[in-house]
Amino acid sequence: MAAGDRIWKNARLLTMAEGATELGLIEDGVLAARNGRIAYVGPQSSLLAELAGFEPVDCEGRLVTPGLVDCHTHLVHAGDRAQEFEMRLAGASYEEIARAGGGIVSSVTQLRAATESELVRQTLPRLDALLAEGVTTVEVKSGYGLAIADELKMLRAARLLAAERSVSVATSYLGAHATPADYKGRNGDFIRDVVLPGLEQAHEQGLVDAVDGFCEGMAFSPNEMRQVFDLARSLGLPVKLHADQLSNLGGARLAAEYGALSADHLEYTDDAGAAAMARAGTIAVILPGAFYFIRETKKPPIELFRKHGTKMALATDNNPGTSPLTSLLLTMNMGATLFGMTVEECLAGVTREAARALGRQAEIGTLEAGKWADLAIWNVARPAELVYRMGFNPLHQRVWHGEPAS
Amino acid sequence: MAAGDRIWKNARLLTMAEGATELGLIEDGVLAARNGRIAYVGPQSSLLAELAGFEPVDCEGRLVTPGLVDCHTHLVHAGDRAQEFEMRLAGASYEEIARAGGGIVSSVTQLRAATESELVRQTLPRLDALLAEGVTTVEVKSGYGLAIADELKMLRAARLLAAERSVSVATSYLGAHATPADYKGRNGDFIRDVVLPGLEQAHEQGLVDAVDGFCEGMAFSPNEMRQVFDLARSLGLPVKLHADQLSNLGGARLAAEYGALSADHLEYTDDAGAAAMARAGTIAVILPGAFYFIRETKKPPIELFRKHGTKMALATDNNPGTSPLTSLLLTMNMGATLFGMTVEECLAGVTREAARALGRQAEIGTLEAGKWADLAIWNVARPAELVYRMGFNPLHQRVWHGEPAS
Ligand SMILES: [Zn+2]
Ligand SMILES: [Zn+2]
Repeated sequence: MAAGDRIWKNARLLTMAEGATELGLIEDGVLAARNGRIAYVGPQSSLLAELAGFEPVDCEGRLVTPGLVDCHTHLVHAGDRAQEFEMRLAGASYEEIARAGGGIVSSVTQLRAATESELVRQTLPRLDALLAEGVTTVEVKSGYGLAIADELKMLRAARLLAAERSVSVATSYLGAHATPADYKGRNGDFIRDVVLPGLEQAHEQGLVDAVDGFCEGMAFSPNEMRQVFDLARSLGLPVKLHADQLSNLGGARLAAEYGALSADHLEYTDDAGAAAMARAGTIAVILPGAFYFIRETKKPPIELFRKHGTKMALATDNNPGTSPLTSLLLTMNMGATLFGMTVEECLAGVTREAARALGRQAEIGTLEAGKWADLAIWNVARPAELVYRMGFNPLHQRVWHGEPAS
Repeated sequence: MAAGDRIWKNARLLTMAEGATELGLIEDGVLAARNGRIAYVGPQSSLLAELAGFEPVDCEGRLVTPGLVDCHTHLVHAGDRAQEFEMRLAGASYEEIARAGGGIVSSVTQLRAATESELVRQTLPRLDALLAEGVTTVEVKSGYGLAIADELKMLRAARLLAAERSVSVATSYLGAHATPADYKGRNGDFIRDVVLPGLEQAHEQGLVDAVDGFCEGMAFSPNEMRQVFDLARSLGLPVKLHADQLSNLGGARLAAEYGALSADHLEYTDDAGAAAMARAGTIAVILPGAFYFIRETKKPPIELFRKHGTKMALATDNNPGTSPLTSLLLTMNMGATLFGMTVEECLAGVTREAARALGRQAEIGTLEAGKWADLAIWNVARPAELVYRMGFNPLHQRVWHGEPAS
């Protein structure tokens, strides 16, 4: 037995293993971790003798799930857009808000003005809110820099979060998020001058885990996204896509064509898009926070995803403009209440399927031997309680890589 | 200067005083408390010398609001209805849920089986969630006992909460919440045998601050509610009413006729109802959590309330069946996002107007001399941030009756 080898006993383990019934529930379960990874998970009765001497932690019958995975966030950003929100409620038009400096321009301006350490400082309270609810892995995108140096700064800030807290960070390069003012009407030039060389530099510096884009009439066309995805492919980087949020440009099909890890939002995805994603193994990342906050009415086609077997994840989409949401528990409630997702779909959506949406399903997302011992220990009797409540945090303890974490 | 006399300096005070501009904001403000009540509130420059020696607390420029008031909750209850929620998402019909023991019957059965101290034990985590976001006064209703002894037990448990935590509790007797199984189809008998004598006993025991009822086709008719309100009037107790939530039975007008403190829900309230409430000074308590959770589509007529000058409060309606919500910050966000309430309406709705909905406007709800020094100190720059975020708690410190409270 080495220092840090631990065994969690007297637990009701929700393994979330693929295909298991009842979310993989193991009553009177035991989970042993060695070197931060799961060495055993199963009933107390089958525990190997060699693990029995590990430092014990008594779960007192609590429910234990995989640590939660927030697989789509813009967590690193500067400032907020509360003023814009207030103006909108007071009846201001989009033009008035824009004239007052609102919109994504505001986030870009503030991002460019902030230093890397200032970005980390502003982001930590948001990250802490996620961690307080059992998150152990968080995805973070660039995309408010829209200039090479600022995109790199965002990604470095995202990487630094993992040094500040016990959490795994997956970065996505989102150079193709919006066109900055100085490239207005010149998407092609922006891609050539900024998005592509920025990706190459970010990749060289080890800052990119995946490549993302925003495929929408107000952002980038499928053909523009192809240029970015082609470079990603040549660099050996996986891709994902903000697709079909406000209209159907065929983003889901485009993502599937490139074997994307995920396509995200998907309010306007059609039958062919859902089918293509299922065939490609592309995860549908459902983002109810943005749907709710911008008062969308068109819901993502959950029934089509079910019909085709497209796997679904759920994420906060934390961002200052359309989803200032820092609760994955509330995200699950929204998935259920707004979109009718089942308790099982919601819980899989923030664990197993969220891990898939990051390409990390071999490492995290379920409680299975060999994966990281990332756990969330809950004061609830029934898994459905994690979805049903609103604004209540029943977390007892978070564990990251086998270590109890605050 | 006596022990406990304190002065909060370097504060941005949001007094929420009636009629003040910008929510009564005082930059570089000072608030002094003597014997738990506000002795001075205003700019540092006008501070009286006699208060200058009080024990200082440096707010470091933080925003300080009145402690929040949750003016409509069913916080004391036993068990939860997560299983019912799960069944509904899985496609179960109301009949199937009822056959499985779901619905309000489930809450009544569990309430009756619980002891008073067990009720307190189960309620405290919910109360703590509210307090963690700056709540200093909470209203709690009976209404799951539906038998005299059990209604009294609920109200005693509610009173006990104030002994367990630094919080003011306002109780409402809600004997007329639903008809229990043994009185099915015999509302008149239930009112005569249980609701009215229960109210008299609860009042004798000092357990009742207001009298409430559920006026709805599935609950009690206006004429049935009149019997309860007439007794309340003869006992000198103020009334309030769950009105017009699922249909328009004229509940708003009925409440106004009795000079009710508030009418609550109000999705179906019409022009005449809103006007009558304004004339009577009856507060419209808006409950977006229930609207959201039960997937209502008809919104309360915010425009009519504005047109007539009907004052609006916002509350969680925390209850296990239709609003398992324990965040007044999220409630504000829902009021804004779902119903288009402005930032000012939302903040007044959980402070000044919520105090009015409890008849406590002379004691709490604004930062004004003579009222209790109930404060919430926030890590935000702008009041709108308290409404804009979802699932994020920026509370720095809660103060109840002049004492810093956890
Ligand atoms: Zn996004
Ligand atoms: Zn109620």
